[in-house]
Amino acid sequence: MSLDLTDVSTPDCCATVVRESLDPAAAEQHARVFKALGDPTRLRLLSIVAAHDGAEACVCDLTEPVGLAQATVSHHLKVLVDAGLLTRSQRGKWGYYALVPGALDQVARSLADVAPESLIPHG
Amino acid sequence: MSLDLTDVSTPDCCATVVRESLDPAAAEQHARVFKALGDPTRLRLLSIVAAHDGAEACVCDLTEPVGLAQATVSHHLKVLVDAGLLTRSQRGKWGYYALVPGALDQVARSLADVAPESLIPHG
Repeated sequence: MSLDLTDVSTPDCCATVVRESLDPAAAEQHARVFKALGDPTRLRLLSIVAAHDGAEACVCDLTEPVGLAQATVSHHLKVLVDAGLLTRSQRGKWGYYALVPGALDQVARSLADVAPESLIPHG
Repeated sequence: MSLDLTDVSTPDCCATVVRESLDPAAAEQHARVFKALGDPTRLRLLSIVAAHDGAEACVCDLTEPVGLAQATVSHHLKVLVDAGLLTRSQRGKWGYYALVPGALDQVARSLADVAPESLIPHG
């Protein structure tokens, strides 16, 4: 019969912290944008807008591809606007949505804020 | 008195789509990870784990920095494990959480899936 030492082991708790972690204010700010991206319909809408010429699309072109009512689509678009990922402009009867230049690069940079050493440098 | 043409303008609805947008299955998959990142406490926990030597930390080192009960912290850590961002291993009485190598790079790549032309190439 062998001894099972699992329950009596005392692991070396408290590994060394090697750098500062994300501060609470930055965490709030980054989380808001990730939350906006955390919905499949919103990701598709963002992608459809980005896939249009000039990274801008009329709301009239966005309802059919996602198969949802315009009110639902407008709600999702508002979340993306509020998160700073899209801008909205009114032209005549239609609202147009455009990808904010650099917004997704900013999201990529926020990943580096979370864990700088975990990202492979590109080049 | 000038004519206001706003109400009678007929904008050229239906701009050109210049590429394929994100497919629904990929959108579901990416949104799940962004949703896990869409909470300030979870971002801080991820960052604290990554800031430890070897990008691994004991749960006993994670409650105090975020100022929350261990049950709440464990719930958030489970969401990060389920999203494939952390792994959990048991050693004696403590659970240890480690950053999944390449997981945040994968998140960065999923941004490129959403809007490839919007990301500035690094190099």
